[in-house]
Amino acid sequence: MPDPATLTQTMAEMLTQSRQAAYTMATLTTAQKNEALLAFAALLETHRSDLRSANDQDLKAQEGQLSPALFQRLKLSDAKINTLIQGLKDVAGLPDPVGRVTLQTKLDEGLVLSKVAVPIGVIGIVFESRPDVVPQILSLILKSGNAVVFKGGREAHHSNAAFMRVVDALNARCPFLPKAWGQLIDSRQAFQALLDFHDKVDLVIPRGSNQLVQQVMAATKIPVLGHADGICHLYVHASADAASPETMALIMDSKCQYPAACNALETLLVDAAVAQTLLPLLKAAADESGVTLKGCSKTQAVIDGIEPAQEADWHTEYGDLTMSVKVVDDLAAAIAHINTYGSHHTDCIVARDEQAMEQFMAQVDSASVFANASTRFADGFRYGFGAEIGISTAKTHARGPVGMDGLVIYKYQLHGHGHLVADYSGDTPKPFLHQPL
Amino acid sequence: MPDPATLTQTMAEMLTQSRQAAYTMATLTTAQKNEALLAFAALLETHRSDLRSANDQDLKAQEGQLSPALFQRLKLSDAKINTLIQGLKDVAGLPDPVGRVTLQTKLDEGLVLSKVAVPIGVIGIVFESRPDVVPQILSLILKSGNAVVFKGGREAHHSNAAFMRVVDALNARCPFLPKAWGQLIDSRQAFQALLDFHDKVDLVIPRGSNQLVQQVMAATKIPVLGHADGICHLYVHASADAASPETMALIMDSKCQYPAACNALETLLVDAAVAQTLLPLLKAAADESGVTLKGCSKTQAVIDGIEPAQEADWHTEYGDLTMSVKVVDDLAAAIAHINTYGSHHTDCIVARDEQAMEQFMAQVDSASVFANASTRFADGFRYGFGAEIGISTAKTHARGPVGMDGLVIYKYQLHGHGHLVADYSGDTPKPFLHQPL
Repeated sequence: MPDPATLTQTMAEMLTQSRQAAYTMATLTTAQKNEALLAFAALLETHRSDLRSANDQDLKAQEGQLSPALFQRLKLSDAKINTLIQGLKDVAGLPDPVGRVTLQTKLDEGLVLSKVAVPIGVIGIVFESRPDVVPQILSLILKSGNAVVFKGGREAHHSNAAFMRVVDALNARCPFLPKAWGQLIDSRQAFQALLDFHDKVDLVIPRGSNQLVQQVMAATKIPVLGHADGICHLYVHASADAASPETMALIMDSKCQYPAACNALETLLVDAAVAQTLLPLLKAAADESGVTLKGCSKTQAVIDGIEPAQEADWHTEYGDLTMSVKVVDDLAAAIAHINTYGSHHTDCIVARDEQAMEQFMAQVDSASVFANASTRFADGFRYGFGAEIGISTAKTHARGPVGMDGLVIYKYQLHGHGHLVADYSGDTPKPFLHQPL
Repeated sequence: MPDPATLTQTMAEMLTQSRQAAYTMATLTTAQKNEALLAFAALLETHRSDLRSANDQDLKAQEGQLSPALFQRLKLSDAKINTLIQGLKDVAGLPDPVGRVTLQTKLDEGLVLSKVAVPIGVIGIVFESRPDVVPQILSLILKSGNAVVFKGGREAHHSNAAFMRVVDALNARCPFLPKAWGQLIDSRQAFQALLDFHDKVDLVIPRGSNQLVQQVMAATKIPVLGHADGICHLYVHASADAASPETMALIMDSKCQYPAACNALETLLVDAAVAQTLLPLLKAAADESGVTLKGCSKTQAVIDGIEPAQEADWHTEYGDLTMSVKVVDDLAAAIAHINTYGSHHTDCIVARDEQAMEQFMAQVDSASVFANASTRFADGFRYGFGAEIGISTAKTHARGPVGMDGLVIYKYQLHGHGHLVADYSGDTPKPFLHQPL
């Protein structure tokens, strides 16, 4: 283990290289970036056996150590490699997020202002044991013209190293790529050192457990794109058809379609007006799907023998087939509960009353607010972004499912012909035209 | 002085009220917000004598204590009050930044995704001695549907309190405004306490000296909109007409039109190819305008007897009529100097070669990059935004001169009819339409 001063020094040098690489990446053409993405795809095929055997080393080292779910995530099967190859081709097919002119104004004759999308610069990314995240992240970084320093899971050490051999081959094949555009670091301490460089890193993206994200958010002044909790709600309004199978299907899809996902339902809010109808049906559906219910006192009064929900339950992302249930007096109470206990991620109302839907969607302060659709739709691919960097619950920069747009910012370009501000100031100022182009 | 624990407790309560107020502000209609802005303007007229006499108290207390420039900034003349009244009316006339739908996609039949602009929420603002900033900030916060906790300068204590009496009158006249939408705090310690609440404040905007901004940035994990330094460059390229009065006018306008501004020129870069022509003309123009030059060794070789520029000069925002001058070998050297020593604020190339201009504007990593226009154009009003929250050198959320757009974010609204994710997953997934609307 290097001492902290050495670690800081090494990281400073990496980040200086990363900045220089970012300047070059920002000037690549769309054609160059797509050429590199397709070469990357071809090289994954060439390196398939190297990747598989490196991954086998990781799998052997973890045998019996990881849960079956994590072990599966660590595994780099041929099918997963095929998916990665297709993914790289897909990213090549996406529109280039860089260079778009989003505003153009003629300030005066011969004085034109343009707002142009540009890469953010140097991104720090940390994620956990899935090695297939490496090429996914690199493809989005490449297409958006950024540079990245990233840390993968320790368990995927050999797999990640094999992916970096692919990157070396890619850099050799595409000499327009600056060598330091994608740098891998291996230790938690090194990433900790990165988090201190808020003058050298423009954005940090943690992808992984709630705990990882919270640790990163607490440890840095660099802007963070991500979300810690995913405490999502579904509220069955008084106007909903509480007896219909569609209502129950929305609840069960939100909860059960993939319970570990951040956009899965945790707390069901039931309007008092429909509680007597809905709750017995809920109990039956929950039993059928293996969902464990925890209820408030009013819920318990209708469903016999279920576990009581404590105050802590309203704050809890179960991530499994557990659901907390609360009976609320009305729409306002539902909104207040969600804004108080939720994580501002994804929340849904089931209703037939249009006005209630609109009030819910206006007043619930969450990145995604739904009416009559499963919370599980909150996802960059389902939203049609073609890629997902992550899901953010921040209130600045990027919110909700974030596509490649989250990896760009803009600069203003002003083309003049010797224009002076003095002419537009003083006692007889020239007026501006401010004419949209 | 309250003890730190009490201060923290008081601030937590203020911010909880601010959050509740923000929820109400987010639901105001454009008509309500404009009604309040016009009432605000009318009340400034009604309160004119109260404002003037409160300001007189502040002025008396500071007599002989402040520099003439700061004393002028503290003064709330009738002319300034007139400007403020007009400013409030102008903001009423600006488009509402909230509610704009920036993306709409039909994911499938009956399943429509909308990306809608919404207020950020709770904003913390700190600024220095100018009391006229109070109504300016409040007007932008109101129109963008946010809530604010702000701290003004201690020197403007009575003036700021008088403005808050106007706000009280406004809240009484417009009962749809939540009382806590604009809260003033008076002590630096209270604002320090605010900076610790990164879970309760969504954005911080420091407006004032370099030192103030750096202190805020160093003290908080809340996203900060602002800029510390304004080290702006103008580079005279080899293709420029170095002998023309237009070139010298661009240099002198950038430097002298308002030298204390953040977008004023600090360092002039002169291409070696034109140094012999330009530098003697520069010396003459500088002498005429009272500009003090500090030069690199190559500059000194052409202009006799000027002070040498030290390494520290390239890092310095003078804010007065001092200019550092460096001769560079070529375009690449100019870009490298700017990206190394600049503050990523505003930088300009003077050139006739189109390709050189484009390379400069692509590779200089600054919020505003100009060709043949004074650096002083970098300003929200000149850019046509109708208002300016501040100028940001951040790489996320908002960059460059920031209008009311910088005070909004977005949420995703999804309207469905019982749509389930299970139908779009598994072995025979329904395809998405992803049709732009």
